[in-house]
Parts: sequence; structure tokens; C-alpha cells
Amino acid sequence: MESIKYIEENKQRFLDELFELLRIPSVSADSKFKGDVRKAAEFLKANFEKIGADNVEICETAGHPIVYAEKIIDPSKPTILVYGHYDVQPADPYELWDSPPFEPVLKDERIYARGACDDKGQMYMHVKAFEAMVACDELPCNVKFMIEGEEEVGSDNLGVFVAENREKLKSDVIVISDTSIISNEHPSITVGLKGLSYLQVEVTGPNRDLHSGVYGGGVANPINTLCDMIASLMDDKGRITIPGFYDKVVELTQEQRDELNKAPFNLDDYKKDLGIKEVKGEDGYTTLERVGIRPTLDVNGIWGGYIGEGAKTVLPSKAYAKISTRLVPDQDNKEITELIKNHLESIAPDYVKVKVTPHHGGNPAVTSTEGAGYQAAAKAIEKAWGKAPIPTRDGGSIPIVALFSDQLQVDSVLLGMGLDEDAIHSPNESYGIFNYYKGIETITWFHQYFAQK
Amino acid sequence: MESIKYIEENKQRFLDELFELLRIPSVSADSKFKGDVRKAAEFLKANFEKIGADNVEICETAGHPIVYAEKIIDPSKPTILVYGHYDVQPADPYELWDSPPFEPVLKDERIYARGACDDKGQMYMHVKAFEAMVACDELPCNVKFMIEGEEEVGSDNLGVFVAENREKLKSDVIVISDTSIISNEHPSITVGLKGLSYLQVEVTGPNRDLHSGVYGGGVANPINTLCDMIASLMDDKGRITIPGFYDKVVELTQEQRDELNKAPFNLDDYKKDLGIKEVKGEDGYTTLERVGIRPTLDVNGIWGGYIGEGAKTVLPSKAYAKISTRLVPDQDNKEITELIKNHLESIAPDYVKVKVTPHHGGNPAVTSTEGAGYQAAAKAIEKAWGKAPIPTRDGGSIPIVALFSDQLQVDSVLLGMGLDEDAIHSPNESYGIFNYYKGIETITWFHQYFAQK
Repeated sequence: MESIKYIEENKQRFLDELFELLRIPSVSADSKFKGDVRKAAEFLKANFEKIGADNVEICETAGHPIVYAEKIIDPSKPTILVYGHYDVQPADPYELWDSPPFEPVLKDERIYARGACDDKGQMYMHVKAFEAMVACDELPCNVKFMIEGEEEVGSDNLGVFVAENREKLKSDVIVISDTSIISNEHPSITVGLKGLSYLQVEVTGPNRDLHSGVYGGGVANPINTLCDMIASLMDDKGRITIPGFYDKVVELTQEQRDELNKAPFNLDDYKKDLGIKEVKGEDGYTTLERVGIRPTLDVNGIWGGYIGEGAKTVLPSKAYAKISTRLVPDQDNKEITELIKNHLESIAPDYVKVKVTPHHGGNPAVTSTEGAGYQAAAKAIEKAWGKAPIPTRDGGSIPIVALFSDQLQVDSVLLGMGLDEDAIHSPNESYGIFNYYKGIETITWFHQYFAQK
Repeated sequence: MESIKYIEENKQRFLDELFELLRIPSVSADSKFKGDVRKAAEFLKANFEKIGADNVEICETAGHPIVYAEKIIDPSKPTILVYGHYDVQPADPYELWDSPPFEPVLKDERIYARGACDDKGQMYMHVKAFEAMVACDELPCNVKFMIEGEEEVGSDNLGVFVAENREKLKSDVIVISDTSIISNEHPSITVGLKGLSYLQVEVTGPNRDLHSGVYGGGVANPINTLCDMIASLMDDKGRITIPGFYDKVVELTQEQRDELNKAPFNLDDYKKDLGIKEVKGEDGYTTLERVGIRPTLDVNGIWGGYIGEGAKTVLPSKAYAKISTRLVPDQDNKEITELIKNHLESIAPDYVKVKVTPHHGGNPAVTSTEGAGYQAAAKAIEKAWGKAPIPTRDGGSIPIVALFSDQLQVDSVLLGMGLDEDAIHSPNESYGIFNYYKGIETITWFHQYFAQK
């Protein structure tokens, strides 16, 4: 196919363009990067126009904008809707990066930068595959792009946009590259995603910071109280103690669990890679099951009192924590958020005040391996990688997958090309150029096979 | 007495000079204020020289310097050693201050600034009482000053200085104004002080920050683990669970406890002042007892993960806490620090690494109400305030009191003039000018009565 040759011939430019995009610190969570988030959107708009997309526009929302582009070659042909996001996670802690997060570098065949994999690198594979097919006049079906800038903060405004643009977004399949494969030796397709419920807790003790000597022991310390509350959220079997939390969790059959555990996984390598002596999780489940099919709870951040250099004997007025749970079918993120909020408020002792603020959430999703989308993706991987993909269930959350099936009644295919070692959301996030180029090729084949359905 | 008139006539200047001292941000805990700490020492040296002290010197230590000054009028007369400190607590959180911490303002007869009471304001009362007595030729005994700059970080180098200067520091009593009275209606003298053991805990889970979706549930989260560990340090009766922690605690007799509980205290006012619905503490003890005679444990600071704006779904590599305990006779701070360190290391689960770093500590101290120093102080308060003082036991720690009795075999008298409402160690620390002036007068009388002993 001409497109594949075109990709080969334009490799270096495809990389240079991605570097340019990675240099824009489009951190959606932090308002001080607001201008940069828009810059990233404008970068995409300009590129779409250059490579021959039609009706390219920056769609305003109550938050960061959504970039839309399309190419309708023949209304009677199938339509692929590409979803991705151009915003990135905050880069802190900056001091743990070996090179500045927004100055991409190529090292050992890997691109190091915040967003290299999640999701600029993976999203841009679609843009370049589209460029190749258009340039070689090999685009076999209609394509629509919807690239948002709020995925890392919960896609709050995407729901509204989708609801208001059902016609415009009409399509036969949605394809998303924002997940990982098991390894380059074992390409895989994610068929299960977790939901998310994210809350912030504020515990207030005395109305001002106090001297821990003059008041210590006489007044509740909100940090100690917050620790008590957090510790009580999980029992010694690693189960979450919030009443009703597991009510809607679908237990997999032993067959399904066996299938899941067939995925190549080595516990010793896993521990070695993370530098830990032991893993920890819910009793009675393997690590793959804990991460893939069981709901989980993590404190994502905690702070209170004096956290500077040296020692300060303060009994603080306030303590805070950011707590999130990952959800599995059929848990509903709004219900769970309500459950957690009510539970935290109900266990708050009367010697403190507790304020719980829901941040954002999303529902879990499981996609079928029978649909045309999955079938075309599997064929494309087999063609490009020389191996049939393994279906896997991933601990990550892409809330919009559930949103799309509700709002647009269209299945999503998760054609991710990332690896665990990409360390997304961490310092020194990276993305292998092998995966970047292989992804562009795979996506090109995906279009061919899907058009033939 | 002439000196009292002199104080009256120089009130405004005494206040202006204190303001000048308060403008120097001499925060000993934070190395970026190192230069300012020395500035405060130099301010004192200059003032001592101006008001007629002899052998004034800035004594270097491994850390911040100690200011020494003296006036020996007659070796056969008794000698008073004044101890105080010119360093202050960190001022954060700055945003909670109504006026900048190092720009003192006078409002409703109160001086608002970091260090206004603890201890610049109280320490400077001695300097100005000394000035008055020298100016009026009414100094009735020998006086030595030892003003340090590391009290807020554990007086690490004071011990060395004292040990190396026993002869120079020879005295009949040590007087310290770094404590509070019950109220201006109920002047009191602190006869009991708590010891302190302060440690920092670092919990390390995975060797890097992880995506909480991809790894959550499969790997221990160091924040959750730290919360579990902290929660386990106290039981539901408010007792500290560290083995051996209470072994050396001297239980007071019912008579002593009754005596202690005679001090004027209103629980409703206490709760109202702190804005809390309920108090919390060790079962079986009153608030006065919990704060005064029982050992306590407080988390003074905690941090880990993402603490910025918005939401970040991170499973962090590390979590930290600063933990301190207040000790009572006969607990030894070094023993307790060792106990806590060993305990924290022993309860650390094998899925994390725990590092415990002792910060600083001090031993508890109880001073006698029979000694000449206490008697002279009691008479001075009766003279200046028109009321006999109530002996109290205070939750605060002045480790050097125990150090002095060990090293110099001299009793200390805690002639503090602060009030709880001064909010030391908190934002908007303040000191009443009534207490400032009344303190200068009380100290002047103290010298007269002690000289007569």
C-alpha cells in the first residue's frame, strides 16, 4: 500500500511534529496553563487544515476547547470517529524528571516528555495515518476527529458537546488510542476499562493552627483524624469497607478469570521493576485480577500541617486528602461517589468537621470482541505486528467510552500502543518510537479492514 | 522605685525597639533565613552594649549563635542567669495572617507579629528591665544573659555551650519568660513542663510515581500505608499504643490532680474559643490533665502524592509525616525516640520501606515551689499584679530547663507572661502590650526580692 511507503518516507517529520506538540505544556488541571492548552488545540487545527481535513474547527466549551475535523469521501461508506486528547497530566514532581517534561528528547529509541504516550503521541498517530491515506488517495472510508482538552480532568464538558452534536458525530465505530499493550512481543487490545470516582476530603479541627504543646492531647488533631478515617476505608483483607461499595460488582466466572490469567505476567519481574519486596491487594485475587477486574481505592494526595524543612510543633487546623476509587461493571460512578461522600461524612467524629468535594468520575466499560470494530483492529494488528492480539482488561479509566455507548450507541475500539514502561502520569513519561510508527501503520490497516466490513 | 518610673517614661521606646526586633525574620528552622537569624543576634548585642552590659559577645556554635551579656556588680551578691531565645517559628501558612508576620502592627492593645510573644517579646522584657535598673542605679544583684537562636529547632548546640561554659554561667537561679499565665485575672507560674520527641517518617512504596489505574490495587500505596501506621499509634481510648511508652510515666496522686483541676478552666469557653463541638483526649482525664500531666502524640505535618489544584490519578512513590510526642516525668526523650523509631520500623509492612529520622527532643521538667527563685517570683507577681500566682503545669516544652538542672545544678523559674490567645506558633501570633509592660515591671521586682534572699 502506498500509505505505508509514505509513512516510511516521512518518519522524521512525523517525529519532529510530535516533538513540537509535546513542547506545549497543555496541563488541563492547572489554570495557569490555560493559554498553553489552547495553543495545543490551535496546533492541531493548523495541522488538520494542512493535511486536507474538512470543516476543521476549535469548538468552545465551558472549559478547554474540543478540536473537530472530518473527511467525508462518500456518505454511503462507513465512518470512523477518532477520539483522543491533547491535554496532559501535571508534570510534578519536576525534580524527579531526568530532562525537562516539556522539552522532549529522544533517548534509546524512546521519546521522553509529559504526554509522549498519554495521549499526544498516541492521538497523533491517527492524525499522521490520516495524512498518509489522504496524501496517497487511499482513504477508504469517512473519518471524523474529536480531540478534547479535558480528559485528564474528567472530560466534564465533552458530555455536553456529544449530547449537542449527535448528528455531527454519527459514525459506525469509535477508535481510541489511549491504552497499553502487554508488550511489543504480545500486542493486545483492551476490552475492559475501569470507572473512576475522585473526591477531595477536608478535615477541620480547631479554628486555627495551635501549639502542639499547649493544646496537644486536649484537642483532636485533624491529621490524626484524617489518617484514622482513611485507614478505616480498607480492611486487612484489602477490601473496601464502604457499605454497598461492592453491591453492583459483577463477579467473573472462573472461566473468565482463567482466560484473564493466561495473559503473560511474571510477578518477580513486576516486583523487580517497581523495586518492591511484596505486592499488596485484595485477598483471593491475582495481581492481574486486582488491577483488571476488581474495584480499588487509592489516596492520590494528602497534606496538612507543617511540611517544610525542619520541625514545627503545630497542631494544625486542617488536613486534606484526594481519594479515588477505580470502578468495574456494573458500578455507577455517581452512585459510588455519593456512597463514599455519605460514608466519610457519617464516620466523621463530632470533634472535627468534614467536607467532601466530588472531583470527577466516569463509568466502567467493557467492549465486545465480536463487533466489527474489534475484528478490524485485530486483523490490523495481525497484519502490522505479525501476531494476533490478546484481549485484556485494563485498570485505567476512559470514562468517555461509557459515555459514547450511552450517547451515540456506537462501540469503541481501544487500539492503544503504549507500554507499562512508558510511565504515564509519572516523571520521565516516555513512548517508544517503534510503537509510534507501528501505531501509525496499524491504524492505516485498521481503516482498510473496517471499510471492507 | 525609680526603675518603675523609668519604665513608665520609656514605654513608647521600649515598644519601638521590640517592633524593630520583630521585623527581623529570624526563623531558625529554615536555612534561607540564616542571615536574618544572625541579624537578630547582632541587634541584641548592640542593644546590650548601649544599655551598659559588660562582656557582650556573639558566641558562635555549630548552628545559630548565642548572645551573652553580663553585669557583675559584686561577686558576693547573688547572680541571676536570664535565658531566652531570639529565633522564631516558621510563619507559614502566610495566607492565614491578617497582616504580614514580620511587619508588626499594634491593634486593640496587642502586638501582632511572629515572635511577638514567643519569645522575642518575653525575652526583651528582661533586657528592658535590666536597662531600667542599670539606668536608675538600682540593679541589686549580678545578672547574666544567655539568649540563643535555636530554641525552635531543639537547642541542639546550647547543650555543648552550657557544658563548655559552666564557670561563666555560674548563677544562683535561672529565670525564663517563655510560658503563659492562665489569664490576666489569674497570674500563674509554670512549675511543670513537658518533654518532646520529634521524628520524621518516610514511607516508600514503588520506586516511582505510578498511574493509579494501571497499578492501583496491585501495589501498596505509601499514603494509605502511612495512614494505617499513624492510625495504629493510638487506641480508641486515646492511649498511645507504642510498647513501653508509658512505663516511666509518674502517675500523680488524686490530691495532686485535684490541686491541678482547681485552676480556673471553663470547657465551654475552651470549645467556643477553638470552634470545636467536642474535645478529644485520653479517657479518664480532664482537659487540664490531658494537656498538663499526660504524654501526648500529634502528627505535626503530613504530605505525599499530588497536592496541587485539581485531580491527578497518581499512586505515589513516597509519603511523609512529622510526628511528635510530648513527654512527662520521668520519660526520657532519647529512650522514647528510640522506642518510637523501633516501633514504626517494626510495624512497617514488607510491601513498603520505612525510614525514621529523629529530629530533636528534650526532657520534661518540674520545678519546686519551695526554692528561693519561685518564692521571689511569687512575691514579684503579687507586688506587680496585686494577686498571688497559681502554680500550673504546662503542656509546652522548654527542654533546656532539664538541661540546666543537669548541667548547672541550678533551678529555673518560669516567669512567663503570655496568654493562650497569643496564638504562638500560629498565624496572627500576638502579645498584649499590657503583659509586655507588666512583665518588665514584674521582672524588676523579681530582681529586688531575689537579691534580698
